[in-house]
Amino acid sequence: VSHHAPEESTAAHRARILVEALPYIRRFRGQIVVVKYGGNAMTDPALSQQFAEDVVLMHSVGIHVVVVHGGGPQIGDLLGRLGIKSEFRDGLRVTDAATLDVARMVLEGKVSSEIVSAINVHGPHAVGLSGADAGLIRAHPRHPELGFVGDVESVNPRIIERLLAEEFIPVISTIGADERGQAYNINADTVATAVAQAMRAEKLLYLTDVDGLLADVEDRSSLIRSITVPAVRAMMSSGALSGGMIPKAQACIDAVEAGVRSVHMINGTIPHVLLLELFTDEGVGTMITSGDAAADAMLGTAPSISEKANR
Amino acid sequence: VSHHAPEESTAAHRARILVEALPYIRRFRGQIVVVKYGGNAMTDPALSQQFAEDVVLMHSVGIHVVVVHGGGPQIGDLLGRLGIKSEFRDGLRVTDAATLDVARMVLEGKVSSEIVSAINVHGPHAVGLSGADAGLIRAHPRHPELGFVGDVESVNPRIIERLLAEEFIPVISTIGADERGQAYNINADTVATAVAQAMRAEKLLYLTDVDGLLADVEDRSSLIRSITVPAVRAMMSSGALSGGMIPKAQACIDAVEAGVRSVHMINGTIPHVLLLELFTDEGVGTMITSGDAAADAMLGTAPSISEKANR
Amino acid sequence: VSHHAPEESTAAHRARILVEALPYIRRFRGQIVVVKYGGNAMTDPALSQQFAEDVVLMHSVGIHVVVVHGGGPQIGDLLGRLGIKSEFRDGLRVTDAATLDVARMVLEGKVSSEIVSAINVHGPHAVGLSGADAGLIRAHPRHPELGFVGDVESVNPRIIERLLAEEFIPVISTIGADERGQAYNINADTVATAVAQAMRAEKLLYLTDVDGLLADVEDRSSLIRSITVPAVRAMMSSGALSGGMIPKAQACIDAVEAGVRSVHMINGTIPHVLLLELFTDEGVGTMITSGDAAADAMLGTAPSISEKANR
Amino acid sequence: VSHHAPEESTAAHRARILVEALPYIRRFRGQIVVVKYGGNAMTDPALSQQFAEDVVLMHSVGIHVVVVHGGGPQIGDLLGRLGIKSEFRDGLRVTDAATLDVARMVLEGKVSSEIVSAINVHGPHAVGLSGADAGLIRAHPRHPELGFVGDVESVNPRIIERLLAEEFIPVISTIGADERGQAYNINADTVATAVAQAMRAEKLLYLTDVDGLLADVEDRSSLIRSITVPAVRAMMSSGALSGGMIPKAQACIDAVEAGVRSVHMINGTIPHVLLLELFTDEGVGTMITSGDAAADAMLGTAPSISEKANR
Amino acid sequence: VSHHAPEESTAAHRARILVEALPYIRRFRGQIVVVKYGGNAMTDPALSQQFAEDVVLMHSVGIHVVVVHGGGPQIGDLLGRLGIKSEFRDGLRVTDAATLDVARMVLEGKVSSEIVSAINVHGPHAVGLSGADAGLIRAHPRHPELGFVGDVESVNPRIIERLLAEEFIPVISTIGADERGQAYNINADTVATAVAQAMRAEKLLYLTDVDGLLADVEDRSSLIRSITVPAVRAMMSSGALSGGMIPKAQACIDAVEAGVRSVHMINGTIPHVLLLELFTDEGVGTMITSGDAAADAMLGTAPSISEKANR
Amino acid sequence: VSHHAPEESTAAHRARILVEALPYIRRFRGQIVVVKYGGNAMTDPALSQQFAEDVVLMHSVGIHVVVVHGGGPQIGDLLGRLGIKSEFRDGLRVTDAATLDVARMVLEGKVSSEIVSAINVHGPHAVGLSGADAGLIRAHPRHPELGFVGDVESVNPRIIERLLAEEFIPVISTIGADERGQAYNINADTVATAVAQAMRAEKLLYLTDVDGLLADVEDRSSLIRSITVPAVRAMMSSGALSGGMIPKAQACIDAVEAGVRSVHMINGTIPHVLLLELFTDEGVGTMITSGDAAADAMLGTAPSISEKANR
Repeated sequence: VSHHAPEESTAAHRARILVEALPYIRRFRGQIVVVKYGGNAMTDPALSQQFAEDVVLMHSVGIHVVVVHGGGPQIGDLLGRLGIKSEFRDGLRVTDAATLDVARMVLEGKVSSEIVSAINVHGPHAVGLSGADAGLIRAHPRHPELGFVGDVESVNPRIIERLLAEEFIPVISTIGADERGQAYNINADTVATAVAQAMRAEKLLYLTDVDGLLADVEDRSSLIRSITVPAVRAMMSSGALSGGMIPKAQACIDAVEAGVRSVHMINGTIPHVLLLELFTDEGVGTMITSGDAAADAMLGTAPSISEKANR
Repeated sequence: VSHHAPEESTAAHRARILVEALPYIRRFRGQIVVVKYGGNAMTDPALSQQFAEDVVLMHSVGIHVVVVHGGGPQIGDLLGRLGIKSEFRDGLRVTDAATLDVARMVLEGKVSSEIVSAINVHGPHAVGLSGADAGLIRAHPRHPELGFVGDVESVNPRIIERLLAEEFIPVISTIGADERGQAYNINADTVATAVAQAMRAEKLLYLTDVDGLLADVEDRSSLIRSITVPAVRAMMSSGALSGGMIPKAQACIDAVEAGVRSVHMINGTIPHVLLLELFTDEGVGTMITSGDAAADAMLGTAPSISEKANR
Repeated sequence: VSHHAPEESTAAHRARILVEALPYIRRFRGQIVVVKYGGNAMTDPALSQQFAEDVVLMHSVGIHVVVVHGGGPQIGDLLGRLGIKSEFRDGLRVTDAATLDVARMVLEGKVSSEIVSAINVHGPHAVGLSGADAGLIRAHPRHPELGFVGDVESVNPRIIERLLAEEFIPVISTIGADERGQAYNINADTVATAVAQAMRAEKLLYLTDVDGLLADVEDRSSLIRSITVPAVRAMMSSGALSGGMIPKAQACIDAVEAGVRSVHMINGTIPHVLLLELFTDEGVGTMITSGDAAADAMLGTAPSISEKANR
Repeated sequence: VSHHAPEESTAAHRARILVEALPYIRRFRGQIVVVKYGGNAMTDPALSQQFAEDVVLMHSVGIHVVVVHGGGPQIGDLLGRLGIKSEFRDGLRVTDAATLDVARMVLEGKVSSEIVSAINVHGPHAVGLSGADAGLIRAHPRHPELGFVGDVESVNPRIIERLLAEEFIPVISTIGADERGQAYNINADTVATAVAQAMRAEKLLYLTDVDGLLADVEDRSSLIRSITVPAVRAMMSSGALSGGMIPKAQACIDAVEAGVRSVHMINGTIPHVLLLELFTDEGVGTMITSGDAAADAMLGTAPSISEKANR
Repeated sequence: VSHHAPEESTAAHRARILVEALPYIRRFRGQIVVVKYGGNAMTDPALSQQFAEDVVLMHSVGIHVVVVHGGGPQIGDLLGRLGIKSEFRDGLRVTDAATLDVARMVLEGKVSSEIVSAINVHGPHAVGLSGADAGLIRAHPRHPELGFVGDVESVNPRIIERLLAEEFIPVISTIGADERGQAYNINADTVATAVAQAMRAEKLLYLTDVDGLLADVEDRSSLIRSITVPAVRAMMSSGALSGGMIPKAQACIDAVEAGVRSVHMINGTIPHVLLLELFTDEGVGTMITSGDAAADAMLGTAPSISEKANR
Repeated sequence: VSHHAPEESTAAHRARILVEALPYIRRFRGQIVVVKYGGNAMTDPALSQQFAEDVVLMHSVGIHVVVVHGGGPQIGDLLGRLGIKSEFRDGLRVTDAATLDVARMVLEGKVSSEIVSAINVHGPHAVGLSGADAGLIRAHPRHPELGFVGDVESVNPRIIERLLAEEFIPVISTIGADERGQAYNINADTVATAVAQAMRAEKLLYLTDVDGLLADVEDRSSLIRSITVPAVRAMMSSGALSGGMIPKAQACIDAVEAGVRSVHMINGTIPHVLLLELFTDEGVGTMITSGDAAADAMLGTAPSISEKANR
């Protein structure tokens, strides 16, 4: 169905599209939504700008947005320019003091700064945070041989809560600190899940480089719009998911089991993917919920949530 | 210029339209906007529903909306059904106790209620108020021969302030009361201006049944998008404005001189006219400002306000 | 016992009467008291004015007063003037759209307005609300054959809470709305009980046209001052209550079982009946409590409550 | 005029008296009233109890009451029991360290405590304060030869403000302290005026042992109900006031000139004199105002204040 | 180890000592600490001034300090001067009305006042309270033969809470009142424990005239730094504690069992004993805790608390 | 004068030193103090740790501390490692995009992070901010030839105010942004002055590598403890100041003229220099005030401020 019949004026057409977003605005107003931002989406200037626009629009309609970002490629780039070589164990970069220094500079002083600047073109909203700020992320070493690669021990959400209460948008770098102040670099998916759990977020949006879960891995049109955790597990058991999809799916499962109402795997390379996922009936990625009837029943107070759940 | 090239997906197109509203959302967020609603717009169910949608969307993006409504035709209708005849002086209905009773029932118990109900389909936002509630509008008789036709003596904005602070949308009937509790029926334009002044509103949107001021009264395409009070006065002096446009223009002038930053004369019969005026570059009516450079400079803090001022 | 010996000055006598109200003021300060107002009390101007004075005095000494009113006779009157005929089923008026329209106009635009105006002669305290305002009363149809006669589905007390917190006096019309915004007319006793329950009111005062429960229906001097729910039930079983007293007694029972501490059936035609019931030892009506020792023990924190309970 | 016709029931009579207090309650609600309490009123147990009842009733209807008390006779009594002899200069007791010790014990540990206890029988409202608490009264010596007799240098009203905000009733002993913590005994009229000025009190009620100002000193029925400062000065010049009335009148003038709206000289030996003065048309003492039209115009927002002013 | 090597400048030495207090400041910031002050410490002017300094320093670093004081010797002194003889039963002074009067004057008007004045030399912080103020301490008679000797029935901590929230320092006299306003004199240890319990205090510091508990009563160097309630009980059973130490130890046990985290028995005659106990590693008295692992684990959130626990 | 007589115990000595800081704690409690931190102090680990301890101690006693830091040497170091060569004009590094990138990474991701981590060892207090966060520093280019070297256009202090209100310690990197989000590197002295002015700071402490202003540049013992702006200007005119002291002195003058009460030039290489300057009578650097009597009179509300002013 076309929404713009020839005789309709452009202005009226626009008004109608704004109005069509109204049910979604009502539904999400006042909720906390954590966005895990990373990968290629970050390095394409047009996509970065659209990401910032989406975040500001979400903020403008009363959603409490928290951005968590990684920056692996950018870290690798500066390490390369400085001639620092890395050893890898099980796919993870062994992080010595010099490497950690580089990671922290890139995450806090480059990636975070660029996201903050892009958002703040639209108003003084974003504030960069690292996990070392205000004791936000307490970390410990993941494994002795990995050096300063950390895991989340606990999250002290007070600084995020205060910033959200003042209508700021926190942009979080994945650095944590132990009790002696030693910093650690932590995987961004892990941080996003831990923050979403600590904030009792309604939604966690994972920007990835895939469209979502496919019923048939060969067929991009077989995208699953909504699925429960047991069903995702079944796909993992049956081999329907494989390779790089396994950790992605596991991260979504972890987040749901940590208490996040719904986790959305969406493709960060689609322009305005956040708006499309949140503010249109169709959606564009895969929404993963617990499958527990009682929990899902609380997904939305408005009846229209079922539309999306049923899509 | 078409905003929807054939190859663009519908979803992406929608996202872009949402994003294009962002500068306006930023600009108006947190401002108080009084909407004077009346006339034909009210009696067309589709337009009424669109009006409610527009108000809720404005509310959703952080605008503090106050609706002031009249209801002359609806009062006339019930008077007719009850066989109550009215005398008119200078075009004003002489209002005896029985007529006042009818006016109050229609304004508070029918018109206001319908507006509140239409808005509240979208959430528990609207609250009907008459000027007798919480001492909102103190009135006195306009002229002894007119009976209970009143003028605004003062506005006690406390109830509106408290409701706005709690994110409610006040919907105000144009009934006032004197210190002995006697009610009066007051002209809606007068009430809208008095409320806008008392609330230090940023904008007052007059929904009328004309498109706005025309440079050439014969040519609807000669709509003036932005004009100053001195220029409106000049048009009145030169005879460029005449007939029913004179009181409309005067009401706008009064409001600007009472301290409202900008008054917009817009056509209530255009679907979604509130959104079109507020959230698009083109706008659809006539914006009237003081013409005082210092005052106009404060019209918006964002540079983009000049776009609309210059249109 | 005479409180005014000849030799005592009028002024000293007055001072003593004010002081005698002190224990009651202490006891009720800060408590929520719902008053169900209706019937004949409303149509006698002197009684209406005294009702307003009583409400303002209660408010002045720190009681949070909520007024719920009906308006059956006034609705019937306007229906009659408009020549709208009503069908009745089981004593209830079948309410079509035109009838509902009339009911709403009368309740919100006449009865509520008059109560608000009478109170606000004493200060800007009262605010009229219908159940459609701010989603206050969610309703559904009572029976398909009754049309727009509704029952309370739920109460969203937020608007009342906010108004009480700001020291306003809410005056509530018994209109509710369903989720599509369709209005319903609801029985005032039902609304009063639902509101009292939702607000966790300390007291619910039913203004009726009888003095209260009589031990001997033939003997007006046999008024029961204080009684428990089981005892009322016993009276109903034994036939000691009959006719129009049955629904009145049942409404009181319903309210106590909904968690209201005490329900008072009082005669709205006694001048200043609210003050007499609340601020004098004698009281003037029948107080109904649960009879549950633990609940009744919490009736008052001051020992003197037992005086009234024992009267 | 008799307010109790024989046929009226006692209860209805009481209700009417309560209602007659309503305009005064409205008028004084939220205002700060300082009561200077002293002399004989304090030593008669019945009067003390009535004073406490009056203060609690004033508090119950929303007046912010502050009590300031002296205790000269009680200090003299303990000095006598301890065999401490005092020298007097110009009628003031020379206060050495031992005398100050006694004064402080009596004022803070006996007089204040008894007032607090009498009030708190009615609820946990009163809190005793000395001027040394929270830096309330900064004092300096009045004259080197008088020892620790002090004058008010400044008042830091923060502790009173905080207690009033929490609905407590401060009861203030007239002890002040200098910056080294040295205490001084200060005249109670002086402290009452200084506190009323610092708190911007609406009223200051001086409980004395006379009825007020008499037009004819020989004729107790010539009591002046309302008078301006210039008129009081004229009485002082003409000799119409003399003896002990001079300092009393001067204290009232000082308070009005310090910005207190109205000062009332009332007879503390009349039972419930506070209620009679505040809550009845007749009043019982003399109200002194500035006589400045602009200031007096602000005496009350309600028209009825003129009734009392004109009496 | 000397902290002041000859070559170190005085200033640097001071800075270091300030910094060494930092871990203790962090640990106690925001906690409620009740100090029971009495006995000889009070009568030595130098110690009194140091006590005040310590309290102000504690307050300055964010500790919420509440002082509870007795005044037995000072009461005895005034009774003696007035020639009032006392009878004793089981070591307790039989308290008739005259004796109570004296006790109250001394406690509220002398001891409390002196503590308040000493603190307020450093700023307008302290506020004297008796248990009769704001219904703080509800009391009943301890034994009919003891007259107005009372026991704590309940504590209404609201006034303390409000004062602490406003950064005041309450100084509490051990007078309580029953519901008729009758005052009672209460043992200070009892009041301190009851207040600490009602406020959920972190610490209760008992200033006594002994250093603490000694392992060997003959050997002052055998001071026990930290001990659990079971161990104290064992000492009582074994006879290791005797005489005046028994009630002191019992008061500490009572307080711990009432829920106070740690009770410190310290010697009030050591200059700045509060600072020494709180802000140095060594401490100077005996800390008594429950010995319950779970409770003790919550003694401090910082690891360093174990240092003191282990000393 | 020795503060530690041989016979005094170490503990008592410590207590006394804590108490001696009390007047300073009282004086500065609740005031805003901006610390400009930079240069060599930052690169010595022991000094860095002492700096953090000092900041936390200031925070613990209620001072609102804001840290502003530069990082020129650290930027130079990373530029060198990356082989990026810089051109200098008038002593300022021409800053192209690559250089700016490095500056931002070093300032936000290394220097700021290290300061935050050092402070947060003592508790979750510090939060790193760049001037791009929340629109804190709006900048414009200093000179077209200098590239992305910026000057402060305006400061939006809201984020600092909110963080201070929540008892956080902001640590600010000297990056600003223009309205398009373009970042600029700004001189740290300039930022510190602008922030101090925007926050209406009481004090600005410049940590430099000199002791302060010397009366005789050859004689380090000729340190000036307190001086007015006119006197500093006189020294500049007379040639008593020269070389690197000129810009340092000018920055202090600028800050005082921008409204900062007092600016302190202190030597960042002295251990615990912040504590020494703030909490001891001697002080260790040069305090510069306006010399305007009225302004200086407001330097402190306590009389003891004159001690330092007179030193």
